[in-house]
Amino acid sequence: MSINSFGHLFRLTTWGESHGPALGATVDGCPPGVTVDEAMIQQWLDKRKPGQNKYTTQRREADEVKILSGVFEGQTTGTPIQLMIENIDQRSKDYGDIAEKFRPGHADITYWQKYGIRDYRGGGRSSARETASRVAAGGLARAALAKLAPEIEIKGYMTRMGTHEIDREQFDWDQIDQNPFWVPDAAAAETWASYLDGLRKSGSSVGAVIEVVARGVPAGLGAPVYGKLDTDLAAAMMSINAVKGVEIGEGMSAAMLTGELNADEISMGPNGPEYSSNHSGGILGGISTGQDVVVRFAVKPTSSILQTRKTITKSGEAAEIITKGRHDPCVGIRAVPVGEAMMACVILDHLLLDRGQTGGVRGPIG
Amino acid sequence: MSINSFGHLFRLTTWGESHGPALGATVDGCPPGVTVDEAMIQQWLDKRKPGQNKYTTQRREADEVKILSGVFEGQTTGTPIQLMIENIDQRSKDYGDIAEKFRPGHADITYWQKYGIRDYRGGGRSSARETASRVAAGGLARAALAKLAPEIEIKGYMTRMGTHEIDREQFDWDQIDQNPFWVPDAAAAETWASYLDGLRKSGSSVGAVIEVVARGVPAGLGAPVYGKLDTDLAAAMMSINAVKGVEIGEGMSAAMLTGELNADEISMGPNGPEYSSNHSGGILGGISTGQDVVVRFAVKPTSSILQTRKTITKSGEAAEIITKGRHDPCVGIRAVPVGEAMMACVILDHLLLDRGQTGGVRGPIG
Amino acid sequence: MSINSFGHLFRLTTWGESHGPALGATVDGCPPGVTVDEAMIQQWLDKRKPGQNKYTTQRREADEVKILSGVFEGQTTGTPIQLMIENIDQRSKDYGDIAEKFRPGHADITYWQKYGIRDYRGGGRSSARETASRVAAGGLARAALAKLAPEIEIKGYMTRMGTHEIDREQFDWDQIDQNPFWVPDAAAAETWASYLDGLRKSGSSVGAVIEVVARGVPAGLGAPVYGKLDTDLAAAMMSINAVKGVEIGEGMSAAMLTGELNADEISMGPNGPEYSSNHSGGILGGISTGQDVVVRFAVKPTSSILQTRKTITKSGEAAEIITKGRHDPCVGIRAVPVGEAMMACVILDHLLLDRGQTGGVRGPIG
Amino acid sequence: MSINSFGHLFRLTTWGESHGPALGATVDGCPPGVTVDEAMIQQWLDKRKPGQNKYTTQRREADEVKILSGVFEGQTTGTPIQLMIENIDQRSKDYGDIAEKFRPGHADITYWQKYGIRDYRGGGRSSARETASRVAAGGLARAALAKLAPEIEIKGYMTRMGTHEIDREQFDWDQIDQNPFWVPDAAAAETWASYLDGLRKSGSSVGAVIEVVARGVPAGLGAPVYGKLDTDLAAAMMSINAVKGVEIGEGMSAAMLTGELNADEISMGPNGPEYSSNHSGGILGGISTGQDVVVRFAVKPTSSILQTRKTITKSGEAAEIITKGRHDPCVGIRAVPVGEAMMACVILDHLLLDRGQTGGVRGPIG
Repeated sequence: MSINSFGHLFRLTTWGESHGPALGATVDGCPPGVTVDEAMIQQWLDKRKPGQNKYTTQRREADEVKILSGVFEGQTTGTPIQLMIENIDQRSKDYGDIAEKFRPGHADITYWQKYGIRDYRGGGRSSARETASRVAAGGLARAALAKLAPEIEIKGYMTRMGTHEIDREQFDWDQIDQNPFWVPDAAAAETWASYLDGLRKSGSSVGAVIEVVARGVPAGLGAPVYGKLDTDLAAAMMSINAVKGVEIGEGMSAAMLTGELNADEISMGPNGPEYSSNHSGGILGGISTGQDVVVRFAVKPTSSILQTRKTITKSGEAAEIITKGRHDPCVGIRAVPVGEAMMACVILDHLLLDRGQTGGVRGPIG
Repeated sequence: MSINSFGHLFRLTTWGESHGPALGATVDGCPPGVTVDEAMIQQWLDKRKPGQNKYTTQRREADEVKILSGVFEGQTTGTPIQLMIENIDQRSKDYGDIAEKFRPGHADITYWQKYGIRDYRGGGRSSARETASRVAAGGLARAALAKLAPEIEIKGYMTRMGTHEIDREQFDWDQIDQNPFWVPDAAAAETWASYLDGLRKSGSSVGAVIEVVARGVPAGLGAPVYGKLDTDLAAAMMSINAVKGVEIGEGMSAAMLTGELNADEISMGPNGPEYSSNHSGGILGGISTGQDVVVRFAVKPTSSILQTRKTITKSGEAAEIITKGRHDPCVGIRAVPVGEAMMACVILDHLLLDRGQTGGVRGPIG
Repeated sequence: MSINSFGHLFRLTTWGESHGPALGATVDGCPPGVTVDEAMIQQWLDKRKPGQNKYTTQRREADEVKILSGVFEGQTTGTPIQLMIENIDQRSKDYGDIAEKFRPGHADITYWQKYGIRDYRGGGRSSARETASRVAAGGLARAALAKLAPEIEIKGYMTRMGTHEIDREQFDWDQIDQNPFWVPDAAAAETWASYLDGLRKSGSSVGAVIEVVARGVPAGLGAPVYGKLDTDLAAAMMSINAVKGVEIGEGMSAAMLTGELNADEISMGPNGPEYSSNHSGGILGGISTGQDVVVRFAVKPTSSILQTRKTITKSGEAAEIITKGRHDPCVGIRAVPVGEAMMACVILDHLLLDRGQTGGVRGPIG
Repeated sequence: MSINSFGHLFRLTTWGESHGPALGATVDGCPPGVTVDEAMIQQWLDKRKPGQNKYTTQRREADEVKILSGVFEGQTTGTPIQLMIENIDQRSKDYGDIAEKFRPGHADITYWQKYGIRDYRGGGRSSARETASRVAAGGLARAALAKLAPEIEIKGYMTRMGTHEIDREQFDWDQIDQNPFWVPDAAAAETWASYLDGLRKSGSSVGAVIEVVARGVPAGLGAPVYGKLDTDLAAAMMSINAVKGVEIGEGMSAAMLTGELNADEISMGPNGPEYSSNHSGGILGGISTGQDVVVRFAVKPTSSILQTRKTITKSGEAAEIITKGRHDPCVGIRAVPVGEAMMACVILDHLLLDRGQTGGVRGPIG
């Protein structure tokens, strides 16, 4: 019932604060015999690492992962895997202001109210730094998937930044890694760059929508009715800092459709059932259909901005606050690898859960 | 790790199929000394009960709940509470067509693929009838909340039906119970009635958006980072049949806002902190702020429609299907009490979880 | 975290009180495609059923199980299985005495102190009637094992009744079902009969030790370090009413041995490793070795006896109590099928858990 | 469902191997505002630390604990607490023999069979070094108990070493810390010393029985029927390396008693109910009575001995093995602080669980 754990069989528990000595993920239930090393996990952390361009916080963090347990001679042993990331950049600075005042839109005030104590250094546990632990665990999940289901491919990208949305007509998979926004549209990348630059200079910030797709997921994953694949994906994404909405397939727009438009028609293909469309986002009744699993989530704009906001102090006095520091004008950018990591953890977890209960039995069609 | 259970301390496990002898909820962890009887729970089931007007399925179900355990002399004893609902309307009919063909947009095909066996009678476990168990458990949760936190009020309503959305300017709490759509807008109720009537007659169906609000929720509920209040609400709502999207507060639109617009400013009021707005939906860092907790979810249109759709049979042959029967042109209507029930369960669960870990300690402000 | 649930993947939640309308087990995570019907489960309930001879309570209960969900056309569907047993014998009697006075050695006083309310009718939730739900769930587990691992055989028997212990030299499997005590020794059966008869007539009661063996369990079951096979067996048995001690293999006596005497030597047999002895009880490091899994537990004597005992009333006054009624002079007798049921549930659960994490991979020897 | 986690609300997940870079415990659900630092935890680790006298392994380990998260300015914050212990003594040695041969009585063979890979260095995950993580978590639990229930006192001691048992008549609390065996009997300490010395010199080892008592535990802790206080204690102790039996109160001997002898009579004392005896071990129906909570467990003798034993190699060939190295002639000695730690974790966990569900309500007596 651990409140800092996620997953059924492949279960991660993240720990650590923004400015403590270290943070990490304790991963339990990983299958044995999975080939993995620190470099394989590091590649994903590097994707999330701050300070890589002017669009992300300039905080300098190596985000170097260390495997402290559960791996022997390059393979997982089936025992708990401790993934630790030491915090390098803990520059001593005056937190007085943040220690006394609550930042609007931040968890400062709720952590204080709930616990009566809070680590105000960089937001402590509520900091987006926690997501580094998720990315590390996700890297491990990807290594396990590479062994158990190599055909599965997981990819995330931005579909919206503030008022700008991508043009689905221009969707280009190869563009995703070609720009700092992981946007599948070269033209959008340019527009968004100047748009975000303006926001950054004005000390503002903006939200974003990230879409994560898992291809090659076999039909049959998901455990109705409270361990549904979409239920776990919704929890996985909503648990990420700053996320305010989650959609599967058609998402909120499904409300606008009629039954005949929304239901994906079925036909028989060479390798099994095929669908005329994917409004379902690859999930029916909480179980994967074999189509692409598509999840989308919205990230709110950072509330740490250089503009003055009204707030109160711990003693209840009215105050104004400007959050100086090294923040992301669009945290959504760095949420892309985080979303991918959560998708990898959920898919692996359900692969294990399914073979545990059903032994991989499948009802034949045709 | 029970896949058909939900909740941390207040934990429900639902069981039963659409056309089996009975279905229900086994509720564990309910506080002792809560005054409750079948009538108190029945009132909520009646709200969800089908066949109450022409806009919901004409299937006749009394949906009469029986308390089989955990209540003694009108009070909960702290032991498991079994809430059972017997299925009355199990009219023997020819399911041949549904038994052999997969309904597009339905869980027929995925249940078959995953388990190699499925109870095709009315959708079996994947039927929306499962939500009756949730409403029963939610009724129990409301009874417990009435004792533990009587100031909490939970209310759900529709904000969209297909292409029609409510006019927030016309929002009227008192209208919600005055129309068959639980819509807080008298004018909308009329428009929607004719709109839905047309769809019903054409044998079509349409989706909807439901919003559920919990007022009077104290600050401090929610357990970061994987037991966040919004994470559990997202899981709770996404686990409901046909739900494809979940939003907290500003939801997906948060992506379009700038930091200064999105962050709710804080001031000191007579009873503690007050906020200039509620973009956060009453949750910051996964913990309740004391403002209204606001969650929204989209329900897709029923795929059981009277229009011909292409599909395949178990033997893989191409086929066409029309789902005759007694279906809801807009299942969203009956999803309103279900959303309220899940909200009640989540809030109660977090009340217990919070007092378990913190003992109700709160950081003083002012 | 459900406190009335047991198991990881094959998970049972029991509910119900001694004199309520019904009790049962909600079983989640059962594999699909398991052939099972009520008769297959009833056979085990009949073994535990009271009133079969003068050595067990004369309370008359049919203990008839009904399957309310999760089984379709004679096979499990992979969805929750509700096993319900209605209480027939709820003779209205005057519980005044038990309602006001606390029975020494009973849970009366602790339930009252913990919950501030208790169902005093026959002990309510603390009654040994709860074990009927376990036996029903165990019957289902046996049906699943018959499909997944037909070579597994589970057998329980008494090794001690009060001051009488069996003579291991006389151990005879075929005798177990030939006497009312499930004792593997014909001579002992006779001695114990007259011994217990005397105790019964004097209105006294006595404890017992039950041993449960699982043969044919493959090597590799058990999940160190908190989901060890022996850890789960210890929890399973200790959770049974009146159990005060649990032993694996050599048990408490292991403390008296030296390393060379305790360690079972290993040799290579035609079908894999063989052991010179089984002090380990078939478990090393929490994982099954392939030898017989042997667990033993002690059941205390019923405290409901016809002899006067000193106690107090709810108002704190000194009092004396004699528990009239239809009690077991040796509850240990009926604990035998309960122990078997818990063994079946634990073994099945670990079969599923193991194939979930490892996929059934095994390190080759030879 | 994490298999390397223990506890409901106060939940520890241990990780790490005998000869890896580090091991530790990730503790979730700790109450906020608990005063704790590394020294407070270190004192308990020092009690378990090897090499303190000739009766324990000469392996040199500082067992120095580091708090990596969850504590800010000397107080717990309510977020996960990472307790890490780095392994100092990883002397490079030739493990060839142990790598190829399976030690009788060890988990070598079962880990290999289950996972197909094992960290053979010092037993890897199956090493008793894992218990250091438990002691660290237990130290934290003690700190929390000191705040929540300062009246609770937890003490462990040996009651048997091999063929020698203590004389209850000579029981002396003050002696426990005065000898290397934590035995509450000065005379026994001397006898045991020479006895163990003899075994050590002959390269043999012996088992032991440890008893752990918790005084001052309030009535009402424990959650029937699968989260019973005794059930969790049984699981807690059985999960410790080399433990083969667990007893509560009268334990296995309860089987020999009659109902009138076993049931503790109740009378009214100045501070509530009092009992004529404590056969129940302070637990009735899985709930604490307010008497001393008494648990006992048996530890088998180390199988790593200097005497030749028959075994097989990975390739299945017959072989002989002598385990050289720095082992404990009686691991039971160091199991004392481990048993205390598990008791502390279970009691704290149930304090939180109880106030979560009941809010601390108690039924009045008198």
